[in-house]
Amino acid sequence: MINNEGQHLQPDVARVRADIEALSTFVDESKTGWTRRPFTVWYDHSRSWLAQRMEEAGLQIRRDAASNLIGLLPGSDASLPPIMIGSHTDTVNGGGRFDGIIGVVAGIEIVRLLQEQQITLKHSLEIVDFTAEEPSEFGISTIGSRGMVGNLPDDMLERTDPDGIKLRDALARQGGKPELLALQARKPSDVALYLELHIEQGPVLEQSGTKLGVVLGIVGIRRFRVTLTGTSNHAGTTPMTMRSDALAGFCEIGLAFERHARQHYAAAAVGTIGRLTNKPNASNVVPGRVVFDLEIRSLDASVSAEIYAGFAEEATRIAHDRGLAIDLEPLSTSAAIQVEPVVRDLLQQACASVASTISLPSGAGHDANQLAAVGPIGMIFVPSRGGRSHCPEEWTDYPDVALGIEALAQAVLSFDLKEKR
Amino acid sequence: MINNEGQHLQPDVARVRADIEALSTFVDESKTGWTRRPFTVWYDHSRSWLAQRMEEAGLQIRRDAASNLIGLLPGSDASLPPIMIGSHTDTVNGGGRFDGIIGVVAGIEIVRLLQEQQITLKHSLEIVDFTAEEPSEFGISTIGSRGMVGNLPDDMLERTDPDGIKLRDALARQGGKPELLALQARKPSDVALYLELHIEQGPVLEQSGTKLGVVLGIVGIRRFRVTLTGTSNHAGTTPMTMRSDALAGFCEIGLAFERHARQHYAAAAVGTIGRLTNKPNASNVVPGRVVFDLEIRSLDASVSAEIYAGFAEEATRIAHDRGLAIDLEPLSTSAAIQVEPVVRDLLQQACASVASTISLPSGAGHDANQLAAVGPIGMIFVPSRGGRSHCPEEWTDYPDVALGIEALAQAVLSFDLKEKR
Repeated sequence: MINNEGQHLQPDVARVRADIEALSTFVDESKTGWTRRPFTVWYDHSRSWLAQRMEEAGLQIRRDAASNLIGLLPGSDASLPPIMIGSHTDTVNGGGRFDGIIGVVAGIEIVRLLQEQQITLKHSLEIVDFTAEEPSEFGISTIGSRGMVGNLPDDMLERTDPDGIKLRDALARQGGKPELLALQARKPSDVALYLELHIEQGPVLEQSGTKLGVVLGIVGIRRFRVTLTGTSNHAGTTPMTMRSDALAGFCEIGLAFERHARQHYAAAAVGTIGRLTNKPNASNVVPGRVVFDLEIRSLDASVSAEIYAGFAEEATRIAHDRGLAIDLEPLSTSAAIQVEPVVRDLLQQACASVASTISLPSGAGHDANQLAAVGPIGMIFVPSRGGRSHCPEEWTDYPDVALGIEALAQAVLSFDLKEKR
Repeated sequence: MINNEGQHLQPDVARVRADIEALSTFVDESKTGWTRRPFTVWYDHSRSWLAQRMEEAGLQIRRDAASNLIGLLPGSDASLPPIMIGSHTDTVNGGGRFDGIIGVVAGIEIVRLLQEQQITLKHSLEIVDFTAEEPSEFGISTIGSRGMVGNLPDDMLERTDPDGIKLRDALARQGGKPELLALQARKPSDVALYLELHIEQGPVLEQSGTKLGVVLGIVGIRRFRVTLTGTSNHAGTTPMTMRSDALAGFCEIGLAFERHARQHYAAAAVGTIGRLTNKPNASNVVPGRVVFDLEIRSLDASVSAEIYAGFAEEATRIAHDRGLAIDLEPLSTSAAIQVEPVVRDLLQQACASVASTISLPSGAGHDANQLAAVGPIGMIFVPSRGGRSHCPEEWTDYPDVALGIEALAQAVLSFDLKEKR
């Protein structure tokens, strides 16, 4: 056993690139972009390929009850819980080649580097390709990581996709054992540290000219559905003074929402109206009903609450002044995931030793959200060109991916070294 | 021949009501409301029924080249062009029992009253049920009145409905002779006076507590399509300061449009944004593109032009400030139809002799738009409950319909009497 103090692991950019490009060949070519949906033949093939790479790297392969693909590199101290590096290789429809994928490739590359330099960690290292992280045809995201931490209850397993197949059966067909989910579920402290390398999916790193981002936490999300009901009338025969125009009301209310989300809390939160329906939506009819969904994301629940309260009060006043009925319906709330200060510091030092680094929140959810239930989590972001993701144009320069892997490796070495025995 | 001076024609409310109720039985009961689309079996049956009523009233029946159903009551002076009373009996999908229908029933009732009182007019009187006034499956409105005045060119006749049937053939199946359209087309001065009784389709009469409205003119309509293009981004990962949110831009621009249409020209114009599409329209994606249609209606083209110019300037500035591309595309322009002062006066006196009367523009188009090409036109409105039309709730009290018929009859008598021989 070689002590890892003073070691530095330098990823092989060409090898990383080859892995990412190889994975981009296992896609449904009838769809745009690089589409590899879970529970499809393309996903089966890519995971077989991935399992081979893991084995070649010296990992012991298994599928867990949730059909997650796990490669184990045993550590020297069997009494320690494992360090886990994970992400996912499924994509959205019309997605890209980097989201999730680089996090799994990073894990395999780090194992290769450890083997090449004959470094044995005290902790076992688990490299995980989580099943079906993206929104699935079952209406559930992060299926595999949910399953790993015991957060995939029976009612979710009974959900069906548009073909009527139950999630339970889909997992079984993919090598999972849904009946063993409860038995295998990881418990709090079962994971020493969960780390995930991911593309930023936003423009902050690129626009600030920074290579690496230490994630401060994963934002909580509050979603609401707002219904504005006025009176649908003939657009020619109804004077301006006799209208209750739901779409004109939406304009004023939507602008107020943007102001609440933007002016007071620009750094700490984002607020978005992404979806609306307008009825009857005809050129010559005054709109009678507008339904729109809004969401507020922040690391700080009190900030989200303040934005919503201010907006709701103003929206209600605007609706009243315009003779519109307003209904504000909460759709969902997810709590923010915090990264512990000790992990932030670990990642900050590892990243800063490799490249320019800033800290930022993750505005999107990840498998890390689930893993936070069983151990401390940390994430590193690399830049997304143009801030784009979930689209064919999604891109991160391979040398930047390698910088992320190098920092991740550094964090693993540091964490493993610090472990008191 | 009896001179009509000093005569007064009093409609039979029960008979008018019976006609309207009878027509409301010829409807497609698989659809909501009272739906009688042109070129359907229900329309064929209703027109057969209507032709019988016309014959019973003493009218000579014919179908013209455009399949309009025309009932002729010969006048005493064959050298005079006819007075025409017309409207339509087709409805929109899910429509009501009054729009158009009362105008045709009014014509038949006036003929009955003239016959009962043994009054012979100098002018011949033509009662017309125009074919397919409402927007049709061929993408054309006022088909019959277009055909009557020579405004149904070959390219329109070649248009097809969703079943692939040409308008030309649909008219022929309905008793028209499309090949004779040019030959039969009425020319300027071929009609002495065209009169139409119609429901207001707006709230002005009801809200002002008035029974009758003299139409000042039919508004011109300018339509534009506006495309706002920003950047579609992840709603969680894109800070508020790095967004080009097309829907937020729409909110500000839509509000500006309402202000231009409302604050400066409340009485003289209306402006409406009735239709929009938002892309990709997902809760968790910053909208990248919004396309919306706006229309401005006014009797005064210079007012429409001023509203549009002011709006376009402000919208362009807002888009620029938000980093959005804006495209303003003219869709269509229809000129306003003026009612000649002498006809306004005629109708004003006729209405005021019967019930409370105000003057107002028609914000909707009618068969009168087409007939204006071949003679002076005039319209009388009766109240619409709640301002509603084109819906099952469309309603006008039968006594109010009768007041409109009474005023229309009075106008016919006055006009006929004034005719210099």
